[in-house]
Amino acid sequence: MRFTFLGRRSRGDTKVKTLIIKFQFDGTDFVGWQMQPGQRSLQGELTKAFELKTGIEYKIIAAGRTDTGVHGISQIATIKIDDFRIPEEKIVPAINTVLPNDIQLLDAQIIDEDYNARFDAISREYNYYITSDYSVFKRRYFAHYKEKLDINLMNEAALSIIGNHDFTTYSKVNNDLNHYGCKLEICQWLQINETDIKLHIKSNRFVYSMVRSLVGTMVDIGSGKLEIDYLKNSLLKKDRSLCSTIAPANGLFFEKAYFNSEYRILK
Amino acid sequence: MRFTFLGRRSRGDTKVKTLIIKFQFDGTDFVGWQMQPGQRSLQGELTKAFELKTGIEYKIIAAGRTDTGVHGISQIATIKIDDFRIPEEKIVPAINTVLPNDIQLLDAQIIDEDYNARFDAISREYNYYITSDYSVFKRRYFAHYKEKLDINLMNEAALSIIGNHDFTTYSKVNNDLNHYGCKLEICQWLQINETDIKLHIKSNRFVYSMVRSLVGTMVDIGSGKLEIDYLKNSLLKKDRSLCSTIAPANGLFFEKAYFNSEYRILK
Repeated sequence: MRFTFLGRRSRGDTKVKTLIIKFQFDGTDFVGWQMQPGQRSLQGELTKAFELKTGIEYKIIAAGRTDTGVHGISQIATIKIDDFRIPEEKIVPAINTVLPNDIQLLDAQIIDEDYNARFDAISREYNYYITSDYSVFKRRYFAHYKEKLDINLMNEAALSIIGNHDFTTYSKVNNDLNHYGCKLEICQWLQINETDIKLHIKSNRFVYSMVRSLVGTMVDIGSGKLEIDYLKNSLLKKDRSLCSTIAPANGLFFEKAYFNSEYRILK
Repeated sequence: MRFTFLGRRSRGDTKVKTLIIKFQFDGTDFVGWQMQPGQRSLQGELTKAFELKTGIEYKIIAAGRTDTGVHGISQIATIKIDDFRIPEEKIVPAINTVLPNDIQLLDAQIIDEDYNARFDAISREYNYYITSDYSVFKRRYFAHYKEKLDINLMNEAALSIIGNHDFTTYSKVNNDLNHYGCKLEICQWLQINETDIKLHIKSNRFVYSMVRSLVGTMVDIGSGKLEIDYLKNSLLKKDRSLCSTIAPANGLFFEKAYFNSEYRILK
């Protein structure tokens, strides 16, 4: 485990512990993960809830930093603690009483080492939902495309980008990153029912707007606007101008982060 | 059909026509059907949309007047018109462009007679959804009860009130009504999956808060707080003080109104 020894302070000091939380959120009314002044962010609401219950303003680190409008089925975050005033088994109900009802803790565990959800996650998984049937009950959770989409064409394109690639073409600029290389493990469209489809995608890492950028181009392939080999060819060119319209955020769900760990909460 | 002859004006006058609309809505952010100053109502939003597109403030009458937070899968409303400036087949897309995205037209039809969704509906159907598994994605559309509910007990109670009864016990006071008699045709709980159940209920009419009042008492029966025969006995007593806690609005869906009619839109 990273930092296992480095993270523990020398004899006499309090040992470093980590509180790991698992949570879900309906992203519709959030500006995304990152705390921003005057905005309603996931990190902000969580920080406020923990502060209300403990009196301490903790720094909370998520396994994936989602954008405005993106949802989370099972997100993991870590909080470095010395000591924590709420007993482990009471954390979920206590924090949920002060969280707004579009974000809720599912689980919490305290471990005796330093752990970082962002750096220790080994891969992430998303689903992207598309419907051809607009309904007020789907509007928050599905992107709506009127065009008839050929899921077989979309799957051929999806299959062509599995593996290690530089995703510059399908990423926004991010100066914090050294490189745009990602190892795509799963990229597959599935038919849910007559009107609804979803993309299941898993990678060791995702660069900014990567899923929504890939979806936008695959939708253009499914509707016949672009050829199947457009996706693979444009990827190899590492040229952002080749990316089609970015798909809307409301169809995107952060499904799960994977860790190489024996801790219950991280499985 | 009621008013078929009375409704047509005498020779020389413009004939009375009716625009019938079918629509769906996510009731979470509405105060319910009825227009109220300074409030966001379904009738208000529809009236505004029709006025924006036609310049005329029409009176819109719904087959069922839902409460704050109650949803609609397929609601019917009628609008008395002489003449209508949007061609019939363009009404749905035109009005939808100016409606907010939590209410949408599904269909529209113009008929050559006077028709009233409220008085001409012969029965109404609702579903009420309950989950034992709280999730941010269910919070808008399911009532959450932690207690273990015995659906068999609830169904025995439900069955006991089928038929013609005075529903005073399970209604709020409404001075506009002459009587609280309703003929319950269907009242049945169904298991959807391990954590979710729904009540399917159909009646010629529903009095104020009737479904939510019945659900509240049936939940108390399902959790063992009340005996099975409590529902039937309390109904016969016509005493409002015997009604248990009213179930929350978010689980209630107006499913459909029934009409004795050959018009496509009313089937």
